[in-house]
Amino acid sequence: MTVSLTTSDSENDPPSPAGADLHLELRGPGLRAGLTDALRDAVRSGRLTPGTRLPPSRSLATDLGVSRNTVTDAYAELVAEGWLTARQGSGTRVAERARAGRGRPAAARARRAPERPAYVLRPGSPDLATFPRTQWLTAARRALTAAPNEAFGYGDPLGQMPLRTALADYLARARGVYAEPERIAVCSGFHHGLALMARVLKERQVRTVAVESYGLDLYRDLLAEAGLRTLPVHVDEHGARTDGLEQLADVGAVLMTPAHQYPTGVALRPDRRTAAVAWARRTGGLILEDDYDGEFRYDRQPVGAVQGLDPERVVYFGSASKSLAPGVRLGWMVLPEELVPEVVAAKGYGDYMSSALEQLTLADFLTSGAYDRHVRAMRLHYRRRREQLVTALAHRAPHVRVKGMAAGLQAVLELPDGTEQSVTQEAARRGLVVSGLAEFRYETPESGRRLPRPDALVVNYAAPSDSAWTRALDILCEVMP
Amino acid sequence: MTVSLTTSDSENDPPSPAGADLHLELRGPGLRAGLTDALRDAVRSGRLTPGTRLPPSRSLATDLGVSRNTVTDAYAELVAEGWLTARQGSGTRVAERARAGRGRPAAARARRAPERPAYVLRPGSPDLATFPRTQWLTAARRALTAAPNEAFGYGDPLGQMPLRTALADYLARARGVYAEPERIAVCSGFHHGLALMARVLKERQVRTVAVESYGLDLYRDLLAEAGLRTLPVHVDEHGARTDGLEQLADVGAVLMTPAHQYPTGVALRPDRRTAAVAWARRTGGLILEDDYDGEFRYDRQPVGAVQGLDPERVVYFGSASKSLAPGVRLGWMVLPEELVPEVVAAKGYGDYMSSALEQLTLADFLTSGAYDRHVRAMRLHYRRRREQLVTALAHRAPHVRVKGMAAGLQAVLELPDGTEQSVTQEAARRGLVVSGLAEFRYETPESGRRLPRPDALVVNYAAPSDSAWTRALDILCEVMP
Repeated sequence: MTVSLTTSDSENDPPSPAGADLHLELRGPGLRAGLTDALRDAVRSGRLTPGTRLPPSRSLATDLGVSRNTVTDAYAELVAEGWLTARQGSGTRVAERARAGRGRPAAARARRAPERPAYVLRPGSPDLATFPRTQWLTAARRALTAAPNEAFGYGDPLGQMPLRTALADYLARARGVYAEPERIAVCSGFHHGLALMARVLKERQVRTVAVESYGLDLYRDLLAEAGLRTLPVHVDEHGARTDGLEQLADVGAVLMTPAHQYPTGVALRPDRRTAAVAWARRTGGLILEDDYDGEFRYDRQPVGAVQGLDPERVVYFGSASKSLAPGVRLGWMVLPEELVPEVVAAKGYGDYMSSALEQLTLADFLTSGAYDRHVRAMRLHYRRRREQLVTALAHRAPHVRVKGMAAGLQAVLELPDGTEQSVTQEAARRGLVVSGLAEFRYETPESGRRLPRPDALVVNYAAPSDSAWTRALDILCEVMP
Repeated sequence: MTVSLTTSDSENDPPSPAGADLHLELRGPGLRAGLTDALRDAVRSGRLTPGTRLPPSRSLATDLGVSRNTVTDAYAELVAEGWLTARQGSGTRVAERARAGRGRPAAARARRAPERPAYVLRPGSPDLATFPRTQWLTAARRALTAAPNEAFGYGDPLGQMPLRTALADYLARARGVYAEPERIAVCSGFHHGLALMARVLKERQVRTVAVESYGLDLYRDLLAEAGLRTLPVHVDEHGARTDGLEQLADVGAVLMTPAHQYPTGVALRPDRRTAAVAWARRTGGLILEDDYDGEFRYDRQPVGAVQGLDPERVVYFGSASKSLAPGVRLGWMVLPEELVPEVVAAKGYGDYMSSALEQLTLADFLTSGAYDRHVRAMRLHYRRRREQLVTALAHRAPHVRVKGMAAGLQAVLELPDGTEQSVTQEAARRGLVVSGLAEFRYETPESGRRLPRPDALVVNYAAPSDSAWTRALDILCEVMP
């Protein structure tokens, strides 16, 4: 017979580390033997980890309804066996070596990361070392102090209203977005936002989504996973050929990075912005505008969002992943009004909201001006990095052209034909991971015909630490053909 | 022709509120007229909200490459028109009444909440007023200060390792869970965890999931949405009839609340715990154990998790939603080892991770003992509430029986046959929202035959504030038949 008991101090005791809950199952007839066995099992199996402090014998005895001697005897026996240690003043604890016999679980072994390369310039991450910890904590303190109790509940599926209000003001001001709080949906980042939109598009019987001929396969896979077909729209030096959208059959939405094409780095030419909106209006299609790094432009002021041209035909996506850090896990969508209920419905099943506290902290961070200040400082930081890259290449590999705008967190380096693969391989051999442009290319047998397939590298100059950057830049110049 | 420009202070200025970004589109030939029109449009459309401070004329002039006079003239004209205000020392701002003409958008109108009832005793929420704000901030400060830079990146899909380690120790100690960090997956709550498992089960070709005959339709809907059939397992006074699982055809998993059946409040009898595990071993099925409030038991020590009986056949779910607050949006799954890669894969598409900062804060909250202290204080608080409910009913409605264990955040009040609906309606008429047990009942034409359908209320005694509770309890007693 198994009796299941859990031990803890009496509830009337003042809180203490010793008051921690402890679950034990006493088996067999003898109380002392049962308790000893249960404790030994808990330690041996690793349930109780080395260093864990056991409850004082008196509390445990009270909780179990046994005499104190029973507990002290059991403790003493396990100390004698080496499972526990007892030291004056620090109580009885699980011995350090008790778990030594257990192997590392297979799951952990299987998931162990491969050897880490020395330098990584793959695009995707901002400089994590610059996360404004102090300012963020200040915002968190203010937000947590000011929040009404209701804020700690399940909350509105669209997100906390103070954040949506702060975002509406910010996006209108800084990105030219027509944003009312009522049409903003908070999500955890672009990936999550796109997953929600994929569900909405599917519900709307959309079958095909056009995507740029350069981009992340992750997002194409996400759309395919949701049951949507993708078709490439050719990207040239003026951005996506939106003037060709008419020719693509059956397209219900187009996913684009107008402000700064990812990863080729070009801006969508004004007539192509207009063409995209005209297409959406004529066909009832939707433009999915991924404004992943719109805040970072170094040569002149950033181009505003396409969304401002027609807020009812564009879904605007932004996030804190590049401007602050991916770990914040907050993004936002600005929706055509008629899509709001559909996004709420899509969030209904299996989805979930973001941390209320984090949302309110970002709201404070925005309204206090800390966000603007951080973006401005980062802009300066990243611009300097880009200039260092351009200067180094001009001196040491003058035939390599840096393409795209002075913007964002990565640059495209044009290589001589046929050298891309050997350059990335040689870089990897020297401990530098860098992406070839081919990684991002998307073409079908028809779309790929007679289109150029330039050799190039995509270099994230934003993410490395200052010390890593100097050496990474050296290696990069050395491996240039 | 449209020229798109965004204004801001020079990047070399020290950060200041005036350095905020501002997006403007200048149209037409005249610079001054173009700027005036663009600013007026931005204010009229609501893009620039009342109170927003405009950049100093000198910065804006520099950014736009126009003379300072052009900007001051434009500002002056708009002040004259009433769109802007200029005050010594506080600069030029958008006037307060400027947006007054705009109607509330239709989406907001449609989503406006209905009249709020005075008192709500529906189950689902803990007492939000008791969220330990100060202690949480202390943990956040420590966590943010100690975190390595990498913590701010995209992170491990299973969650931040410090949180998984802290959870492993806590769950082993307090809930008898066999938990290694390597088999723990962080999610945003039970709902999210179940959605992930539904995807995993579907991939494993599972067709049917057995669920308890009382529970939330939300979860049954979630499973159905994922393409899984559900079948009820009858719940009696000893919990779910797991001894009848054999008779249900084609079942690949069973979703249960063994520690404290939701919402009937009974504990799963030991032989039924064993029966569930035996069924899972024999058939290769999985037990999905929803331990939503396992920490809250008032009469004796909590029953440990079924997961401890066979960690390779049970998926254990827990969350901070009841023990802390739903707004924290953190939950956890302890997985059979072989499911770990499948859950990682399920998280891969469209899913996302929880805030790194929030995860690290909870890790600190657990390891510092603050979590244990909070749970202990809440246990005392909720136990008192439950006693008040029992005492009040004993005096004022002695024929109403309080069923279920002294545990959790809600109680079941057994009513005379045929009175449930009239009681909930009469309560609602007096401003008290309370759930009837029928809301939670799940039966099919076959399963429902010859089963009792008791009349009862499910009363959340934990959520109301102290002041609301007294009055809510009064109304509750008054409407008892």
